[in-house]
Amino acid sequence: MAEEKRGYTLAALAEMVGGELDGSGDLFIARPVPADSDDSAGITFAENEKYLASAISGNVGAVLVPVETPKVSKPVIRVAHPRMAFGMVLAAFVVPMPSGGIHATAQVSADAEVDATASVGAYAVVEAGAKVGAGSNVMAHAYIGQGCVVGEKCSIYPNVVLVQDVRMGVGCRIHSGAVIGADGFGYFWNGSGQQKVSQVGGVVLGNYVEIGANTCIDRATCGDTVIADGVKIDNLVQIAHNVKIGAHTVMASQVGLSGSTVIGERNVFGGQAATSDHVTVGDNMVFGGRTGIIGDMDTPGEYFGTPAVPLSTAMRVIALQTRLPELFKRMRAMERELEHLRDGKDI
Amino acid sequence: MAEEKRGYTLAALAEMVGGELDGSGDLFIARPVPADSDDSAGITFAENEKYLASAISGNVGAVLVPVETPKVSKPVIRVAHPRMAFGMVLAAFVVPMPSGGIHATAQVSADAEVDATASVGAYAVVEAGAKVGAGSNVMAHAYIGQGCVVGEKCSIYPNVVLVQDVRMGVGCRIHSGAVIGADGFGYFWNGSGQQKVSQVGGVVLGNYVEIGANTCIDRATCGDTVIADGVKIDNLVQIAHNVKIGAHTVMASQVGLSGSTVIGERNVFGGQAATSDHVTVGDNMVFGGRTGIIGDMDTPGEYFGTPAVPLSTAMRVIALQTRLPELFKRMRAMERELEHLRDGKDI
Amino acid sequence: MAEEKRGYTLAALAEMVGGELDGSGDLFIARPVPADSDDSAGITFAENEKYLASAISGNVGAVLVPVETPKVSKPVIRVAHPRMAFGMVLAAFVVPMPSGGIHATAQVSADAEVDATASVGAYAVVEAGAKVGAGSNVMAHAYIGQGCVVGEKCSIYPNVVLVQDVRMGVGCRIHSGAVIGADGFGYFWNGSGQQKVSQVGGVVLGNYVEIGANTCIDRATCGDTVIADGVKIDNLVQIAHNVKIGAHTVMASQVGLSGSTVIGERNVFGGQAATSDHVTVGDNMVFGGRTGIIGDMDTPGEYFGTPAVPLSTAMRVIALQTRLPELFKRMRAMERELEHLRDGKDI
Repeated sequence: MAEEKRGYTLAALAEMVGGELDGSGDLFIARPVPADSDDSAGITFAENEKYLASAISGNVGAVLVPVETPKVSKPVIRVAHPRMAFGMVLAAFVVPMPSGGIHATAQVSADAEVDATASVGAYAVVEAGAKVGAGSNVMAHAYIGQGCVVGEKCSIYPNVVLVQDVRMGVGCRIHSGAVIGADGFGYFWNGSGQQKVSQVGGVVLGNYVEIGANTCIDRATCGDTVIADGVKIDNLVQIAHNVKIGAHTVMASQVGLSGSTVIGERNVFGGQAATSDHVTVGDNMVFGGRTGIIGDMDTPGEYFGTPAVPLSTAMRVIALQTRLPELFKRMRAMERELEHLRDGKDI
Repeated sequence: MAEEKRGYTLAALAEMVGGELDGSGDLFIARPVPADSDDSAGITFAENEKYLASAISGNVGAVLVPVETPKVSKPVIRVAHPRMAFGMVLAAFVVPMPSGGIHATAQVSADAEVDATASVGAYAVVEAGAKVGAGSNVMAHAYIGQGCVVGEKCSIYPNVVLVQDVRMGVGCRIHSGAVIGADGFGYFWNGSGQQKVSQVGGVVLGNYVEIGANTCIDRATCGDTVIADGVKIDNLVQIAHNVKIGAHTVMASQVGLSGSTVIGERNVFGGQAATSDHVTVGDNMVFGGRTGIIGDMDTPGEYFGTPAVPLSTAMRVIALQTRLPELFKRMRAMERELEHLRDGKDI
Repeated sequence: MAEEKRGYTLAALAEMVGGELDGSGDLFIARPVPADSDDSAGITFAENEKYLASAISGNVGAVLVPVETPKVSKPVIRVAHPRMAFGMVLAAFVVPMPSGGIHATAQVSADAEVDATASVGAYAVVEAGAKVGAGSNVMAHAYIGQGCVVGEKCSIYPNVVLVQDVRMGVGCRIHSGAVIGADGFGYFWNGSGQQKVSQVGGVVLGNYVEIGANTCIDRATCGDTVIADGVKIDNLVQIAHNVKIGAHTVMASQVGLSGSTVIGERNVFGGQAATSDHVTVGDNMVFGGRTGIIGDMDTPGEYFGTPAVPLSTAMRVIALQTRLPELFKRMRAMERELEHLRDGKDI
């Protein structure tokens, strides 16, 4: 791994996370590792005694543990919140993607504005009327189309396409293969074929939006498709034209939002969940994987199934569905009994 | 938005749509806008009184309205079909993607044929044996593989890949990230592992086919995967090897067609709908979102669910499913009553 | 098609597949064709009398048939296993993708190692610390990120992105648009927004792994996402961070595996099947299209539905679901009868 060249002493990591070191500060930690790792140059974390016992029994180099943890047979760093401290360690091992100025092979239009502190990678294309803000990194093969605005400190990964009229705020990350600003899917039947409705709107991403690999966000027919501040979208998600997504909503992979859907704030969508078009969803709702939202919904809570119902209802229905064969049998038995009664026979 | 530099006077738009202007012809319209917009430089449309009342109550600059509409407090253009007229306005605001000749950085094989009126963008690659027809625009980073034929007036968006042996007619649009002509998914178990079945067929797209962003259409094992004239396919759709899709069929995002599926003409597939392999579907059918087609079907109508059943049946079944807990309770109550009867007791 | 320039005499094909020629050895075969083809320059195969009769009735040039087949009115090659022989014919018609040395426009870092026998295509980028093994073909526009290792005899198709720390063995094929090594989807709510958990792990692919077009395989949070030897993954599949997939497992298009899922060996996943996160699946299981695996499973067999149940159970439940309207009617009828009884009336 690229990070194998990097590393920190355990003492340096203890200082980094503001924890208390118990063990050799000289121990060289090459990488953070999962809880089940046997990597003697790795550091992991344990939030409770069970995970700690497991970590101690293996070969892992060191463990981030809660402050109350007694001395164990392995170097530890005691911290208030092991998971959060581990997050700090992870961040310390990030290997930055290549950057630095405008690559000799980048095609930047004379009518584009690229901040002097921004980076444009090999073979990237920045078209007329596009802007790239301070500290942003437009990586190799990225395409920044006409009229697109990349705010400050954004990361545009290799092979991203911003087709046209896509504007984003600060601190956004757009992962490889994402296509933002392609035409919305609009046609009408003209008597002999599907006639295209021109798509001339844009896409607006707020600040600190993250868009996953190969995800598609279509431009609006007119107006804008809008993804608000802090929204996080996973890979292979479809966001159709004129959709609006409220702040801090999170969507797992392969979700599909149909045209003109309006989603509120702080919702969570499980993988492959989907909406019908023109549906409105409120705030603070959690939709399980593959949930199908076919009508407006606005009561906070957990939902599952197609159509989406409260999770507890969905689980009860699912359990009973597998008992349908039994149900039909019991039904038939009763019908036979009633037949007997009808015929005046004893049962 | 790129189109913000463009615009028309209201008089020019009235003439463009063949409508009757009622209001200042000098009003500058900068962009078409959605019905709920408050953009005073925008134009929208209203098909009925409700939408018109809504548009008038806001700040929008002008409205396309039906001919019989009386004078209102806002500039209007009276037309026979407001929605169609709005489509004409949308088309007038399209900003063409960059084009113009063969870019200095394009790699065009000496054994490829690119029409003198076609455009090949920055870093695009056109391999040996490929042809690009008159008036077509192969945009930046596109890859036109060996033996591929792009007909006349086609738009191949940035980062499209035509892998090998993909031929298309006139007026096709292939959106960014689409991959056409990758290997079909064919293996057989040879006793110790999955052995690849070589995929040497092609893909044929008819005229006026539109393929969405990041959609995949695999080449046939042998012969051709065929997408007929006028078919429109949305983003992130999977079309497996040897599929045939009939003319004017429309497929929304994330649909998946398994190998050797044969689809007829003028069908509509909702998002995430899917077919089993080797299924045959007739003409004029509508499949709701996520419908699963697991057998041949050919009666025109609307279908929903997995397996696909008529929409009305599906809706009744769905409604009853959520009543399964109630059903089990009622069943239990009856069984108790019958038990009493069996025991000779009154009920 | 590109292969139209190629071709073999029927005698050459008979020798190639070790079969017995019955017909003119001079017949020129331009391409393998599907069973229903009428291509007189094509060869197809027939495993039984029905397919043979169909092939003979058409115009196809020649047919691979079982050894016991009597003389028919068309050139044939008699072989022990027609389907396997046809696979050999298909392989003979593969047109290799362009390759040959390091293209003048490729950007290969001075800190990368590319074997002298490897090929790097137009506009491909190979970053620092990356390695490309002997005989591998990194095609146009591919991006081989920092610390990535492409083993020997691998095919990296146009527009593939290996973001960072992706290592693969020998003989892998990565199809166009696949993104391997993008960040896993990890956040935690920090009281005011979703805070990113840095993703610093890698992706390891074994030997002879094939990854479909536009498929995404995320890097691990730490440690590695692991795809074992011989795994075959179709297009548009999502493999989340820290997933492990055992040897020779096969996944059809649009499958989605959530984070930390562990999948065993020799499983088959139908299209759009999906797992919840942290689920463990054993070996030798077959999951039908769109099956939802929401808990650990380890009994070999065929499964279907959400949640996944044995295929036979699932089919029975599905059949009964469509009879729910009937069930409710029968239930109501019985309740009426019991009411009569309760009221002391005859029934």
